[in-house]
Amino acid sequence: MTQPKRIAEIASYHAHIYYDVAKTKGDAEILRRQIAERFVVRVGNWHDELVGPHLKSMYQIAFAVEVFPQLVPWLMLNHRGLSIIIHPNTDRPRDDHIVHALWIGEKLPVKEDSLPETIGADEEPERLGPNTTPSVTEI
Amino acid sequence: MTQPKRIAEIASYHAHIYYDVAKTKGDAEILRRQIAERFVVRVGNWHDELVGPHLKSMYQIAFAVEVFPQLVPWLMLNHRGLSIIIHPNTDRPRDDHIVHALWIGEKLPVKEDSLPETIGADEEPERLGPNTTPSVTEI
Repeated sequence: MTQPKRIAEIASYHAHIYYDVAKTKGDAEILRRQIAERFVVRVGNWHDELVGPHLKSMYQIAFAVEVFPQLVPWLMLNHRGLSIIIHPNTDRPRDDHIVHALWIGEKLPVKEDSLPETIGADEEPERLGPNTTPSVTEI
Repeated sequence: MTQPKRIAEIASYHAHIYYDVAKTKGDAEILRRQIAERFVVRVGNWHDELVGPHLKSMYQIAFAVEVFPQLVPWLMLNHRGLSIIIHPNTDRPRDDHIVHALWIGEKLPVKEDSLPETIGADEEPERLGPNTTPSVTEI
């Protein structure tokens, strides 16, 4: 039998928080501020226009594996009805988005074709550091 | 603005691992054994017949909040294509299944009406201990 994958294959995680520009951007703004106040993460740009494999407006929250145990439960309780994909970053981007991802809220389609199956051995996943300075310590 | 919920409201978690009796019970068996070998959890009975709010055959894995950081990423990588709901146990069972849950694999409907909105202040969530004795230490 194939051996199970080891969680050490996960270099980091991305959450993509989806919103509707006309209807739920306000909720996405509140959630974005609440995340930045509480977690050491990298908050990405607003993408009202579709980008990458995403079929809805979104912004990205990039975070280290150490942040997973607090951020993921917090998002479960506080996602304000928004759809969120949380995917690991291994060396298989397509699987990471399509097979390995978890979803909070409504599950949305993702453009599979735009995702490479593997990353080359000489390619590094992007490693930009956190850009938040949390002030709220009670999570 | 309403204060965000605190993750301390989460007493424990349940994962429900769904399978099709004719097609994917073998995968569910392998996954069940792999989980029991690796994690200190309570593995529940097989429910080929529908039970509770679930609209597909399933078994439950009950686990403490301390197990979340390893079990959830492991299931993301190793769920064998099965659908899994992971929901927190707070004092709001309906929200826990419908609003607060995360999904790995295909998201399935859950019978909302069969879930109480709240549990009484004198009711304790079920607290049966783990029933596994893991032998595999490399997760």
